[in-house]
Amino acid sequence: MTTPELPMAVPAEGLPARVRIHEVGPRDGLQNEKNAVPTEVKAEFVRRLADAGLTTIEATSFVHPKWVPQLADAEQLFPLVSDLPVALPVLVPNARGLDRALALGARRIAVFASATESFAKANLNRTVDEALAMFEPVVARAKAEGGHDGDGVHVRGYLSMCFGDPWEGPVPIPQVVRVCTALLALGCDELSLGDTIGVATPGHVRALLTALNEAGVPTSALAVHFHDTYGQALANTLAALQHGVTTVDASAGGLGGCPYARSATGNLATEDLVWMLRGLGVDSGVDLGRLTATSVWMAGRLGRPSASRTVRALSPHQEP
Amino acid sequence: MTTPELPMAVPAEGLPARVRIHEVGPRDGLQNEKNAVPTEVKAEFVRRLADAGLTTIEATSFVHPKWVPQLADAEQLFPLVSDLPVALPVLVPNARGLDRALALGARRIAVFASATESFAKANLNRTVDEALAMFEPVVARAKAEGGHDGDGVHVRGYLSMCFGDPWEGPVPIPQVVRVCTALLALGCDELSLGDTIGVATPGHVRALLTALNEAGVPTSALAVHFHDTYGQALANTLAALQHGVTTVDASAGGLGGCPYARSATGNLATEDLVWMLRGLGVDSGVDLGRLTATSVWMAGRLGRPSASRTVRALSPHQEP
Repeated sequence: MTTPELPMAVPAEGLPARVRIHEVGPRDGLQNEKNAVPTEVKAEFVRRLADAGLTTIEATSFVHPKWVPQLADAEQLFPLVSDLPVALPVLVPNARGLDRALALGARRIAVFASATESFAKANLNRTVDEALAMFEPVVARAKAEGGHDGDGVHVRGYLSMCFGDPWEGPVPIPQVVRVCTALLALGCDELSLGDTIGVATPGHVRALLTALNEAGVPTSALAVHFHDTYGQALANTLAALQHGVTTVDASAGGLGGCPYARSATGNLATEDLVWMLRGLGVDSGVDLGRLTATSVWMAGRLGRPSASRTVRALSPHQEP
Repeated sequence: MTTPELPMAVPAEGLPARVRIHEVGPRDGLQNEKNAVPTEVKAEFVRRLADAGLTTIEATSFVHPKWVPQLADAEQLFPLVSDLPVALPVLVPNARGLDRALALGARRIAVFASATESFAKANLNRTVDEALAMFEPVVARAKAEGGHDGDGVHVRGYLSMCFGDPWEGPVPIPQVVRVCTALLALGCDELSLGDTIGVATPGHVRALLTALNEAGVPTSALAVHFHDTYGQALANTLAALQHGVTTVDASAGGLGGCPYARSATGNLATEDLVWMLRGLGVDSGVDLGRLTATSVWMAGRLGRPSASRTVRALSPHQEP
């Protein structure tokens, strides 16, 4: 038995012709890994992802090593991959992180905000507005400095807890819209709407996107970032595509979340997304075979099978 | 941390107000379990599912015990649950199976056809048309006999391999439409469109439903039956709901598939479906807490954790 030429491409109405996948595996996917992944393995992971056709690969984070020990090698990793002909955004938590990223020639950065007070307090030890105030000079300097071609560093704003919060429950849409518009006012080029705990459903996704449009935020400035905790990530992505979203975050092999808690499932798996996009006739530029091989290889390095259903189906005998 | 009142209900446009879940856990979910599940456990499973609000629970199969040893206790099981105030369809492979089901007072049966020649040959050792010819007298007698109220036994026709086939690859839509219309012509009341190997994507789902409508099949006669092999089941379900489908097959805890092959994931998990429906404001009548507790209990009987992401998230410490 083989599964030749699957999935069959049957385009659906009202979807974008092309989607840009923002691959977060090397950063969001690996950051909670307990055992240190060697820098050379991370670099090889990024290179293989680029070789599979991913054009935006979030490479690492210039956060203080105390908070994310796994990514303490950002200075060593970034030069190993910066020659790749792909966009390599890096997370910067603050002005110090921006200094480190700019010193290495990073052309894309991301800041990480929260839609809720509870998570802003837990993650940043600040109120939402205090966090925005901290990001203001970071974004301003990134846009002003900006490297060789003079158009400034591209700034992505992550917004976590856009749908539900583990302490506060459902997050009111107007509250999310307020922080989104504030991040754009700071100068962010793109916002990634994060369902950090994976509770969103498709109607909620459409409602938030519509509310953002009504507040003057164009869909072209928005990316979606879904977690599969309740199995909703791909259905939510479909709803976002139907709304016109063309940038989707995903993590190769579904890496991410907390691998030591049975309940935790990670980011939307890039392979599951690519399977759907192929079926929908939406171009992502990704070679599914190469991507799956990359995730199987990475699963071997991490010592456990990939969480991606597509990876498991296409590589049933993976034995890391 | 708790997750109070989640998911937030945010209805989306164009969806049905109510969906009937056709729960297949006791039959499709258990049929490939290697170790015999005691009849009393199966009966308790069905009772707990009914108590959780499921109104249609496929109880067992009157197939020859040689082919599905796990369901060899159909005669013993059915009387243990037939007092429940829910619909209890049973699978009947042929005239002998119908005799056995009718003798016990079954009011709903299902026959199992294939959209492809390869699977008809592998599963039924017949051509597609030979299988249809075998079902003809079965369906006719079910509709003619039909128990106490004189309106005949309700007949569901399962159609497997509606999207892809492991030997043949993508399945042409006209081929699926032909077998569907033939099953309806035999007298089937309802068709369940099966993506047996889980390869479908949302555009393909919409295209098949549209083609069936164009061939005169009303959406009200159609159910969808997705497998999560490539992680597509819930996105495909969303596409079907958007088309107007109001009967969705699912399996509590995601039971089903072959549990001994790493690649195999089973049916769409009922809990993941209920989570989405709740978020969409679509009524299913199911109590998610009771359903999750049922799947955790069943996982304990089977000796492995549930495959449902929602069950895992809501019961992170399940230790079967």
